[in-house]
Amino acid sequence: MQINKISLDTPYLIYLGDVPDMHHAKTGAGIAYWRPEHCAGQLRLPECPIDLGLPDMTVQDAVDAGVRTVIVGVAPMGGQIPGKWIPQLIELASAGLNIAAGLHTRLSDIADLVVAANKSGAELIDVRVPPAGLPVGSGRPRSGKRVLMIGTDCAVGKKYSALALHRELERRDIKATFRATGQTGIMIAGEGLPIDAVVADFISGAAEVLSPDNDDDHWDVIEGQGSLLNPSYSGVSLGLLHGSQPDAIVLCHDAERLAIDGTTGDYPIPELDEVIDDALRMARRMRTRCFCAGVSVNTSSMGDFDRDNYLSRLQNELGLPCVDAVATGMTPIANFLLKYAS
Amino acid sequence: MQINKISLDTPYLIYLGDVPDMHHAKTGAGIAYWRPEHCAGQLRLPECPIDLGLPDMTVQDAVDAGVRTVIVGVAPMGGQIPGKWIPQLIELASAGLNIAAGLHTRLSDIADLVVAANKSGAELIDVRVPPAGLPVGSGRPRSGKRVLMIGTDCAVGKKYSALALHRELERRDIKATFRATGQTGIMIAGEGLPIDAVVADFISGAAEVLSPDNDDDHWDVIEGQGSLLNPSYSGVSLGLLHGSQPDAIVLCHDAERLAIDGTTGDYPIPELDEVIDDALRMARRMRTRCFCAGVSVNTSSMGDFDRDNYLSRLQNELGLPCVDAVATGMTPIANFLLKYAS
Repeated sequence: MQINKISLDTPYLIYLGDVPDMHHAKTGAGIAYWRPEHCAGQLRLPECPIDLGLPDMTVQDAVDAGVRTVIVGVAPMGGQIPGKWIPQLIELASAGLNIAAGLHTRLSDIADLVVAANKSGAELIDVRVPPAGLPVGSGRPRSGKRVLMIGTDCAVGKKYSALALHRELERRDIKATFRATGQTGIMIAGEGLPIDAVVADFISGAAEVLSPDNDDDHWDVIEGQGSLLNPSYSGVSLGLLHGSQPDAIVLCHDAERLAIDGTTGDYPIPELDEVIDDALRMARRMRTRCFCAGVSVNTSSMGDFDRDNYLSRLQNELGLPCVDAVATGMTPIANFLLKYAS
Repeated sequence: MQINKISLDTPYLIYLGDVPDMHHAKTGAGIAYWRPEHCAGQLRLPECPIDLGLPDMTVQDAVDAGVRTVIVGVAPMGGQIPGKWIPQLIELASAGLNIAAGLHTRLSDIADLVVAANKSGAELIDVRVPPAGLPVGSGRPRSGKRVLMIGTDCAVGKKYSALALHRELERRDIKATFRATGQTGIMIAGEGLPIDAVVADFISGAAEVLSPDNDDDHWDVIEGQGSLLNPSYSGVSLGLLHGSQPDAIVLCHDAERLAIDGTTGDYPIPELDEVIDDALRMARRMRTRCFCAGVSVNTSSMGDFDRDNYLSRLQNELGLPCVDAVATGMTPIANFLLKYAS
């Protein structure tokens, strides 16, 4: 079965609306960071405080610069597109620019936008719509190698870690594919499968489709979703883990995160060795030799001295490579992964 | 938020079509077993070998007997309604009988059936359609007590165990509600939420809606779905576990099941103490005091002597009450549950 390939024409204009903080602009920030060569500029409402460091553009600027696709670069809670953005999106679609978004509100459900796009010939691309006809997971072991990012929580750096590990493997001329499971990852990779938007019975089936049989020496580097510890999304995480049948996992964590975010209860994050144990115990039910290849921590809140201390202490405790994917890089984890994968 | 209450008019006619074996007739069999007082008869195609022990009826018999609702009592793999059943279902709808089904094919998608129902005023009730507007799980601890069935696999007796435990609690005048999570359970209870049909991001949110705040001495007895060990459905199982936040679990098992059924890989079922450990480890991330109240085993393949031996050996090994919900009853598990729930 074909995976949900989207194909976005470049260059991009990143649309930010009036997004209030960087956390909610993570889609745009991710694309600007990982695909700077594709980003012509950003378009913001006057009150928007967020700046991705791209040239500010008006609709006319974007047309003049040859922009082909506007990417709605925000991920608001609840996934709705605020009404005040619609007139500008209509203006962009009327100018013939394709619009891509990955929110729960579908672009194709905004009637005036559909009319404008139809008139100009612009495409509206809803990235968060899973393909029809996904199978139930079969549990069939597949050829090729897989490494899956596991999070202590949502938004702790799973996507960055996967992309950085993928880049590191490619740098070494190792066959590898980044497998995107969320909207931003899909927009960065140009393909993928929005695993959290499929019907519950098909989560692991979707993960199997996303990461098919491959050459024995090929690595799928699979973006994680949610966390086994997050009461809102743990089902998605386990379905992805069991459908991926990874040879290895990489634990991703944010050094500032002491408890699960965004819940009403009190859910402290356990010691990281316990989190790894939980994940391996679940993973090994489907692939007995699964191992943890390292820990990737977002330490952006720390200075260099504190970061070095934190990571080397953690590395001593766990006996595993511990890195910051952005600040120190994935080289030690790639080494460990390749050394111990049989 | 309101749960997906369906309300089925009685008496029922159980429709079996040409279902080839009892396994695929489990919806009809469950309703005949748990709600015999509501079942007026069964309707089968001539080649159907399955007999639920209900009076065989033609369409006219059913009308004459005052049947109000036809229940499609089969659960074929893939969830499709075979084309050869459609003429008879149309005849039933044309005679003014409501039709209820819980398959992936929706009754409301069968155009000729919709026409017939509209003409006669019959209702078409798709039980496997989740309500719109389900929330993402919040993780908020709720008042009241909850016990969730956990399976070593699919179809090992979770629904029967939950219904039997619920009946045992009611017999003791303890406030209790059976919470249905699948089509058959919903048809038996007359309400519930098809947890495997919701979008993945909302599994635990659906479980929270299904089992809301309640009196401190009220028990929700929650039907399980799938298994943490089943590569096809483990995500549904973990989302249900984390959304239910149970005070206790009951492990359900089939004594004949040595490996996970219906998969292409080889997934042996571990020792039951390991399965309980896995489940409690996951459960306690959301509710630290969760405990296992016993093991309910389908031993229908055994004679009395073998059953007694098997259950007492297991009970010695695990230090927990071990029963067959149908053959020996849930009394020991209810005792253990009520003694140790704080």
